[in-house]
Amino acid sequence: MNIPKTNLPRIVIIGAGFAGIHLARKLRNKNCQVVLIDKHNFHNFQPLMYQVATGGLEAGSIAYPVRKIIHDYKDFYFRLARVSEIDTKSGCVISDIGSLHYDYLVIATGSKTNFFGNKEIERNSMQMKTISQSLNIRSLILENFEQAVLSKDERERAFLMNFSLVGGGPTGVELAGALAEMKKAILQKDYPDLDISKMQINLIQSGDRILNTMTEKSSAHAEKFLSRLGVNILKNVRVTGYDGRTISTNTDLSIESATVIWTAGVMGAMINGFPESATDVKAKRFRVNEFGQVLGFQNIFAVGDIAQMETPEYPFGHPQMAQPAIQQGKHIGENIVRLVQGRIMKPFDYFDKGSMATIGRNKAVVDLPKVHFYGFFAWFVWMFVHLFSLIGFRNKAMVFLNWVYNYVRFDREGRLIVRPYKKKSFVAFTSDEV
Amino acid sequence: MNIPKTNLPRIVIIGAGFAGIHLARKLRNKNCQVVLIDKHNFHNFQPLMYQVATGGLEAGSIAYPVRKIIHDYKDFYFRLARVSEIDTKSGCVISDIGSLHYDYLVIATGSKTNFFGNKEIERNSMQMKTISQSLNIRSLILENFEQAVLSKDERERAFLMNFSLVGGGPTGVELAGALAEMKKAILQKDYPDLDISKMQINLIQSGDRILNTMTEKSSAHAEKFLSRLGVNILKNVRVTGYDGRTISTNTDLSIESATVIWTAGVMGAMINGFPESATDVKAKRFRVNEFGQVLGFQNIFAVGDIAQMETPEYPFGHPQMAQPAIQQGKHIGENIVRLVQGRIMKPFDYFDKGSMATIGRNKAVVDLPKVHFYGFFAWFVWMFVHLFSLIGFRNKAMVFLNWVYNYVRFDREGRLIVRPYKKKSFVAFTSDEV
Repeated sequence: MNIPKTNLPRIVIIGAGFAGIHLARKLRNKNCQVVLIDKHNFHNFQPLMYQVATGGLEAGSIAYPVRKIIHDYKDFYFRLARVSEIDTKSGCVISDIGSLHYDYLVIATGSKTNFFGNKEIERNSMQMKTISQSLNIRSLILENFEQAVLSKDERERAFLMNFSLVGGGPTGVELAGALAEMKKAILQKDYPDLDISKMQINLIQSGDRILNTMTEKSSAHAEKFLSRLGVNILKNVRVTGYDGRTISTNTDLSIESATVIWTAGVMGAMINGFPESATDVKAKRFRVNEFGQVLGFQNIFAVGDIAQMETPEYPFGHPQMAQPAIQQGKHIGENIVRLVQGRIMKPFDYFDKGSMATIGRNKAVVDLPKVHFYGFFAWFVWMFVHLFSLIGFRNKAMVFLNWVYNYVRFDREGRLIVRPYKKKSFVAFTSDEV
Repeated sequence: MNIPKTNLPRIVIIGAGFAGIHLARKLRNKNCQVVLIDKHNFHNFQPLMYQVATGGLEAGSIAYPVRKIIHDYKDFYFRLARVSEIDTKSGCVISDIGSLHYDYLVIATGSKTNFFGNKEIERNSMQMKTISQSLNIRSLILENFEQAVLSKDERERAFLMNFSLVGGGPTGVELAGALAEMKKAILQKDYPDLDISKMQINLIQSGDRILNTMTEKSSAHAEKFLSRLGVNILKNVRVTGYDGRTISTNTDLSIESATVIWTAGVMGAMINGFPESATDVKAKRFRVNEFGQVLGFQNIFAVGDIAQMETPEYPFGHPQMAQPAIQQGKHIGENIVRLVQGRIMKPFDYFDKGSMATIGRNKAVVDLPKVHFYGFFAWFVWMFVHLFSLIGFRNKAMVFLNWVYNYVRFDREGRLIVRPYKKKSFVAFTSDEV
């Protein structure tokens, strides 16, 4: 990997998500050599990805170059690479650009979509864990409408205008809200030759309420807001298959849908080379102690979605969301400094700041530790929190400007099919230059 | 194509570039059915594409949804399709989504890169006529640097950091300036482990001056500005081959370069179905009369880059640039209205407003019909003209905000490899999700 050999202890961090970046920042000016590895050259702000998928924001507004984050950090190196395995015996990271010895290793590879082994659903449905996947969803939504205008068959048009979101968590809820806003404000204008009232948005939840990690009141409000926007909420329905045309479920219900977006679960983005005892095989997460060390290893840490720190309050680990990742990144970064300096590490304690979800224009639900609120003010808080969590002045300014524009004009202009998604099934999109 | 049959005359426009869009606007509320066809669902602003390629602007800031442009125009239809042929006998457009009868046809398909038959160069070099191609260039620039940091071989690093622009027209000049600015302000910071002074930017021009459609004074100033930025200007050198590694020329000179961007020529994006007499076979343009009608056809028009209106002043047609396309679009749109209404068409007269090119920060050259100027004021005029030519308030605001940010911070943050370009040669970029 062409990293110079020095006398400094070398800390290798795999992953530049929330956990990896916040951890790296704690290692600045600490007499360590730090090598940050990611398969992308940018950090991205996952909580706003659904707005990229629905044309409200450009990808560049929620992504930030990793090299820029670290470019004035001494002895920091970034490498664009995919890590396949760790050789824990010799202390080496093995990647597609070569291998590298580490003194300390941090695994911050995050999570990916969990299809629970259903290959058919995995093949035919969309996911939204990366910028590329978000842009694919954007293309597919628009391609379906372009295809629908060509069809004289009512059933075919209904199929193409059916959007089904599987999973009633924040991602599913926020996508449903954004799609409903698109339907109301944009699609009818853009496609005057289609009857957009035939567009269906289904939110399919296996449990008996959506946003089931939030309070029951928040769930109820979210359901009310979504229903008013015309979203069909299907509860106690488990999706069992999707062949690209028809969604089958554990009930009588089946739905013909051209776009199925699967947000029903995540699992750790595992790396090979570890004994079973160090991992939760089902969740694909590394089991870590209260200091963040992977069980059985002194010098290997895991943080964020990939880490499972089992505590009395969180027997299955912390929720796989931004807040635990950020807090762990900061805390465990400090722990590594302590360890390197021969000091005693401190156990991690998660401070639950609460959670929130937005449902289209003017509406959100917010659960803070002691107070819960809904509607316009919650929406305002949601925007404020997300805006100020973005890295970089330019991204903040871009997102802010776009939000103001979208709000005032009831618009979202990112409806460009720059990179067609459907290549085989719809001949109109066989583009040679993409 | 599922376009309703009405009693209105049907005008089919192929291409939503400058010519097509400006022409379409003239047909609004004129008792015609208008069908606008393009292979992309957006119009884009080509003059700023080089800034997308070099990370200064997001693609979404210079592209605009076609459906939004026409969405309150009565009896207007947009179709996303690729037209392969015209059946002029039956009056039909043949495309990948079916065929469509026209009463009047407008060909506004623009131009594409001309490699003058050299397949090797075409295969190995980059071009910049579409948004996708611009994003490919952006990815390749960054990928080369990511690859260079991995190499211990000085010659390999020099090869990866060599950027060669073939063609000294506005595109080549503006790209060279932007790359030179990147080198100075960004790359040294982003890649502290590389010696960025080894980065070479070559501008290769077959003639004896760059910007040879502008005044000699402008050429001289542009050369001075570029040289000061460290660009190597190679004049009277014709590129004869590029195998992906080495550029060969008609002189002793050969250059090892990982990135060759070909801006040395364009040709019309021809459509099949026409007799040779209607076209200039070499330039691949439709020969049109002074009203814009393709020679030999009453009801078929060509406008913009694809049209070759031979006049005493322009014996080989108007230059293939934005201004002639916009002016032709407007004028010939009016002519079609006249023809449909049985009135007499008016001959087109091109008003040359002049031309300009920018060379990095604070520098440009501007040739107006009666006055020529250079330097800071020219740069300011260049920005003003381009900003106000963009379609849509949001795009103007986005570009303006980005320019202010880039100027104040000496930065351009669009350096994200969202869609890797190099897939085969550089294993680090074999991404499955792209």
